[in-house]
Amino acid sequence: MCSVLVPRAPLRRVAVTGGTHGNELSGVYLVRHWLQDPSELQRPSFSTTPVLANPAAAAACRRYVDCDLNRAFTRTLLLSRATPDDPYEVTRARELDQLLGPKASGSDQAFDFVLDLHNTTANMGTCLIVNGSHNIFAMHLSHHLKLQFPELPCRVFLHQPLQSAASESNSLDSVAKNGMTVELGPQPQGVLRADVFSRMRALVASALDFTELFNQGTAFPAFEMEVYRNLGSEDFPRTEDGDLAGIVHPQLQDRDYEPLQPGTPIFQKFSGEDVRYEGHATVYPMFINEAAYYEKHIAFLRTEKLVVSVPPLPALTPTQGL
Amino acid sequence: MCSVLVPRAPLRRVAVTGGTHGNELSGVYLVRHWLQDPSELQRPSFSTTPVLANPAAAAACRRYVDCDLNRAFTRTLLLSRATPDDPYEVTRARELDQLLGPKASGSDQAFDFVLDLHNTTANMGTCLIVNGSHNIFAMHLSHHLKLQFPELPCRVFLHQPLQSAASESNSLDSVAKNGMTVELGPQPQGVLRADVFSRMRALVASALDFTELFNQGTAFPAFEMEVYRNLGSEDFPRTEDGDLAGIVHPQLQDRDYEPLQPGTPIFQKFSGEDVRYEGHATVYPMFINEAAYYEKHIAFLRTEKLVVSVPPLPALTPTQGL
Repeated sequence: MCSVLVPRAPLRRVAVTGGTHGNELSGVYLVRHWLQDPSELQRPSFSTTPVLANPAAAAACRRYVDCDLNRAFTRTLLLSRATPDDPYEVTRARELDQLLGPKASGSDQAFDFVLDLHNTTANMGTCLIVNGSHNIFAMHLSHHLKLQFPELPCRVFLHQPLQSAASESNSLDSVAKNGMTVELGPQPQGVLRADVFSRMRALVASALDFTELFNQGTAFPAFEMEVYRNLGSEDFPRTEDGDLAGIVHPQLQDRDYEPLQPGTPIFQKFSGEDVRYEGHATVYPMFINEAAYYEKHIAFLRTEKLVVSVPPLPALTPTQGL
Repeated sequence: MCSVLVPRAPLRRVAVTGGTHGNELSGVYLVRHWLQDPSELQRPSFSTTPVLANPAAAAACRRYVDCDLNRAFTRTLLLSRATPDDPYEVTRARELDQLLGPKASGSDQAFDFVLDLHNTTANMGTCLIVNGSHNIFAMHLSHHLKLQFPELPCRVFLHQPLQSAASESNSLDSVAKNGMTVELGPQPQGVLRADVFSRMRALVASALDFTELFNQGTAFPAFEMEVYRNLGSEDFPRTEDGDLAGIVHPQLQDRDYEPLQPGTPIFQKFSGEDVRYEGHATVYPMFINEAAYYEKHIAFLRTEKLVVSVPPLPALTPTQGL
């Protein structure tokens, strides 16, 4: 088992990143607040650094300036020679790689954990995005958060590259030794809702508390957990020119995580006609009608729901601990 | 009584404008659809022209490129000499003034009516924005729409310039002889919701039906109607540097049109402290937490609720009619 995903030593440096997408305001304003007053991030056994990931996009209240920062953390881009024509986000990705990484595997300099804060316009509630069930630490953290907020439906999304098992993660948290994404919705781009803001703030506090418990030598037993795993995505109906020809069906809108059966209407064309789901099996849609995904040709993600068994997270031994 | 606001002749040319703000997608996609297939806009007695008001902003899925188009229809801007440095929206406002106006008062060339389609991120439901209760035709149209959609709360907002009674309207519909704005929410910027899309489509159809009835010689009796009239606006709490220091209070969020009493919490500071409403009288907030108004320093509009008596809209006489 990879030592990063089952840490053998206390986590010493944690980063909380917001504004990776500049119009997802919960993280932007939490980080701006913590940069002024970081007191609520402090825990005895480790340091927490708030980072405004994409300051230019946040200043413009846009997702990005030139390209999506959260797809720019590939080794190829990070290691290529800088040029004056590089997109802003590629330059910024290299800066963040210097600050929080470097991504080059096995680096001891990298931060131990990055918690990256996002919002979605979809009716996703609280969603914790983990890069695979092998990430034992993040799975235990997710389980802890679910238990801490029993009043929330808090879902875990295993996001694994679809092309091949070896395919590289290109998201911000991939520059550190380990990480997780917190995705809260629904919230319009460019809007701060108090309910979503408070929920994100409480989740971050609880994630830091979990890290403190682990660092102090707490063992966490094995458990089983329901998770959603990505299978692919579905595009909107389009005209021959590639323009939208329809819209998410009212029967599907806001029904993230609910089972979608073959034959169910998923789109309504502007001409009035329904488009039905043509898959062969039940899937669980997520990110339904997320504003930022129109340009990525994603009307929703298809996921499967499964129960995974997560092994225990062993306590650090005194010599490993504080 | 001004003949435009109580028409003495049939309306012959109506425009339906969408995408005045390029990320308010219901109007953008309705107009794009109608430009391909205008059949549902046709009525026997008049022509209806769909217009994509801000094509560059719609292509970029942004509210505007350089400045807010819906504040650019002032006589000063429309009549000033064009220069290569003009903001895109000022140039576009002059084009729309040529197409739908000109605004110069008393022009016979101008369109008879412009229906301008908007969305808001606020929980505004269906809101019809009329430029004053003296606009008898628009008041009757609003009343007709309320009666046609009894299942909707459909509110009428009298938007009158606050500075002085003579202050000029600078919105798109001001270039035509008469007009009205349809404002539907909540819908995130950059998102098309099927429920909002269908509602807007049905409202436009019903507005055209009303115009047809009027042109055909129908008289509409006097009535009384509840309306909201603007009193001013409230900004977010801010730091000394002008940054946001807080957020719309969870007790106020989504409560558009509900009475707000003095002393009620309206903002929650990031530090945790509540900010209470310090006015001396009950007001009715609107556009609470609209994304586009952060930069305008508007957290919500304050309005008063009143009942207005609207005189009859007399039937056209046969010589005036068809």
